[in-house]
Amino acid sequence: MGKPGRRPGRAGTREQILASARAAFAEHGFDQATVRAIAEGAGVDAAMVHHYFGDKQGLFMAVLQVPIDPEKLVNEITGGEVEEVPYRLVRSFLSVWDHPVSGPAAVAVLRSGLHGPLGARLVRDFLTTQILRRVASRLPLDRQEVQYRFSLCASQLVGLAVARYILKLQPLASAPAETVVPAISPTLRRYLLEPLDNGELEAK
Amino acid sequence: MGKPGRRPGRAGTREQILASARAAFAEHGFDQATVRAIAEGAGVDAAMVHHYFGDKQGLFMAVLQVPIDPEKLVNEITGGEVEEVPYRLVRSFLSVWDHPVSGPAAVAVLRSGLHGPLGARLVRDFLTTQILRRVASRLPLDRQEVQYRFSLCASQLVGLAVARYILKLQPLASAPAETVVPAISPTLRRYLLEPLDNGELEAK
Repeated sequence: MGKPGRRPGRAGTREQILASARAAFAEHGFDQATVRAIAEGAGVDAAMVHHYFGDKQGLFMAVLQVPIDPEKLVNEITGGEVEEVPYRLVRSFLSVWDHPVSGPAAVAVLRSGLHGPLGARLVRDFLTTQILRRVASRLPLDRQEVQYRFSLCASQLVGLAVARYILKLQPLASAPAETVVPAISPTLRRYLLEPLDNGELEAK
Repeated sequence: MGKPGRRPGRAGTREQILASARAAFAEHGFDQATVRAIAEGAGVDAAMVHHYFGDKQGLFMAVLQVPIDPEKLVNEITGGEVEEVPYRLVRSFLSVWDHPVSGPAAVAVLRSGLHGPLGARLVRDFLTTQILRRVASRLPLDRQEVQYRFSLCASQLVGLAVARYILKLQPLASAPAETVVPAISPTLRRYLLEPLDNGELEAK
């Protein structure tokens, strides 16, 4: 992917915007990055960014190149009873990672997140702003605790992805989703819905 | 680090052996790699390998450059009651990763394991042959289930390391070990010691 420049050709405009956006998200984070600054970095009008990518969030997902719709995913996860959320969370997570298209894309994003601080910021922002913030808005969770509960959940989900798809630890790497979901979801239930002890609360 | 060659100078012998060993462990895995073939790859006598690194395991740890003694670590973990093992496992794990010397070394190994298949093999072998196999030999675990239980434990521990030390997800990244240990160890208890349901057993 090329560097952002000031003279986008017709064919390269989309790529210029993506390169500028990748740099901006990695440096400033999703919340601080602005479509205006990204457009400026690519030498185009902000309207061009909206034309190609819709809003900032569409741009962010295009940068990550993960062909999923976070809104739809979160609807799946939080659609039923609260008690089912941990189960649905693991099931949806595996459905993305086991999928022949979104799986390799997710592995690529995770690898970039593990490679250096800029990638780490993208992955952290993806988890926080695209998934967890949406899930939180639909669950009756204590606002004081929610960030800590999420970082615990993320530790298990990211670890599941690393062990299963990158390190390929057996037999977890070959186990069918129907086996992995009931094994992992009680962990998510505890992190997400069960009372935290005082030691845990102090960590905030 | 240089490539293995046939003409080691005096000063470079140790490095030649390490380069040959790294290649052999990554390609063949810990169990299949032999000291003889590693010595051959470095153009030295096997006695030279033993002189510098003791046994194959000492060589493996030198390749990984993690300044820990797995035997000592496993003794700490399995020293007390079986019921305490999950707690001790998380506590020992964090003591390695929070340590100013072994922590950055462990991050480097994990990053290499996440970067490509050769590094992944080294990390997988480290977990399996140096830690889990030893822990297993001292716990009354069903031999049919032990590998599956370990891959579940590894998913949580690797995820804890990635979330806390690489992605730096807050507040988990800044939480003191005294807080993290009680939050994570019930998960390890379930994966290691509690009955697995049938769905989980089928995965083996």
